[in-house]
Amino acid sequence: MRYLLTVAYDGSNYCGYQTQPNKDTIQKQLEEAVQKVNNNILKPIQAAGRTDKKVHALGQAVHIDLDINITPYKLKRALNSNLPNDIHITNTKIVDDNFHVRYSAKSKRYVYLINLGEYNPIERNYVFQYNYKLDIKSMKKAIKVFKGTHDFRAFVTENKDKANCVRTITKASIRKIGKTKYEFIFEGTGFLRYQVRNMVGILIKLGEGKITKEDLKKILESKDRTKGGVTAPAEGLYLVNVVY
Amino acid sequence: MRYLLTVAYDGSNYCGYQTQPNKDTIQKQLEEAVQKVNNNILKPIQAAGRTDKKVHALGQAVHIDLDINITPYKLKRALNSNLPNDIHITNTKIVDDNFHVRYSAKSKRYVYLINLGEYNPIERNYVFQYNYKLDIKSMKKAIKVFKGTHDFRAFVTENKDKANCVRTITKASIRKIGKTKYEFIFEGTGFLRYQVRNMVGILIKLGEGKITKEDLKKILESKDRTKGGVTAPAEGLYLVNVVY
Repeated sequence: MRYLLTVAYDGSNYCGYQTQPNKDTIQKQLEEAVQKVNNNILKPIQAAGRTDKKVHALGQAVHIDLDINITPYKLKRALNSNLPNDIHITNTKIVDDNFHVRYSAKSKRYVYLINLGEYNPIERNYVFQYNYKLDIKSMKKAIKVFKGTHDFRAFVTENKDKANCVRTITKASIRKIGKTKYEFIFEGTGFLRYQVRNMVGILIKLGEGKITKEDLKKILESKDRTKGGVTAPAEGLYLVNVVY
Repeated sequence: MRYLLTVAYDGSNYCGYQTQPNKDTIQKQLEEAVQKVNNNILKPIQAAGRTDKKVHALGQAVHIDLDINITPYKLKRALNSNLPNDIHITNTKIVDDNFHVRYSAKSKRYVYLINLGEYNPIERNYVFQYNYKLDIKSMKKAIKVFKGTHDFRAFVTENKDKANCVRTITKASIRKIGKTKYEFIFEGTGFLRYQVRNMVGILIKLGEGKITKEDLKKILESKDRTKGGVTAPAEGLYLVNVVY
């Protein structure tokens, strides 16, 4: 039976989603928990997105095929009791055998959170603290440049082996949260490595007045990573949900 | 020169505010940072409230007397560069020599945060996760019982040596935060050890339908800790601010 799981996690203490030798990752923790529930038989886990080190998820999606017969509700409870308290299954459901968490995905939503106000130690792992002024109005206009289908090579780190960096972004906007925070919302069919953090990085540069919206367009069209600016830190990034 | 500092901290990794032998505390960290800034001379630090292990602060108040002459702005910067990233000075100002952070305080505000929705791993250290239903409407009415001047002995842990448990609560209310969270707000001239967490504990018992508002009144009047119920967990509690 194939199960679709929705997973929330605090990425602060993990080396990202994907399994790496001798590193603690979200995938490793999920696999161990699934193995315990599945009569000690290891099962491969497919994930919708490979979040990087310290990146969080509110709605990562994974699918697994289990040998046992278990209701979604009981599976959720069993997995959560075997997971550390910074990883939590928020939803489980049975899906068709030809459902695939990556190929069946219609879109993904990432959010990047930035704080322009006083530093708050309670949020230190959950928001990018930025201590200077930003021209949010210009950033709100410029973020629209990313909408549509583009070759995002200028915003992809480690792109040497990437044959295809063409992706479609269906939503790109900035919204105020509370008194001093802003979230950058990106929705699209797929995202490349560091793409969201690189897009946020260049938008911050624009918000500092160092480049214009026209410059941003040219950088996107250049397909040249060396022009694409800095990568925004991991702690502000959230994989919010995957739409099927 | 006497300085008043406003301090925010994530209490998760500390054994509370107050110095204890061989334990890491907020006070210890503050003293070390102040010593570095004050020509390596140790200075006593007075705090408005002694928060317990894992309790947070958004606006703890402390005062110090420094030998050096430094502007409040520079003091804030110097201290923050010597503090760990889970403790942060949010404000500094020069005060009169007879100002005292505890005796001059007009009131203190504590907030207790509870989540009735799905567990969120990102908030695990910052909110009390409660997985059952609560009758919030009845709790909103019952919390008013605490308003006014009372002997709070029934809600004070370790009260054997306390001659005086009479305190005045000027505000006590419950407010919805987002979709599934509630905050309990308590304002008063002073609070006793575990008092807020014990008041929240009994209100949860009431929200579960186990006691009525009349029972709560009787428990308060009994001045008997054995009748006062359980202490709500530390992670939901915040010292929000101190009014002068």
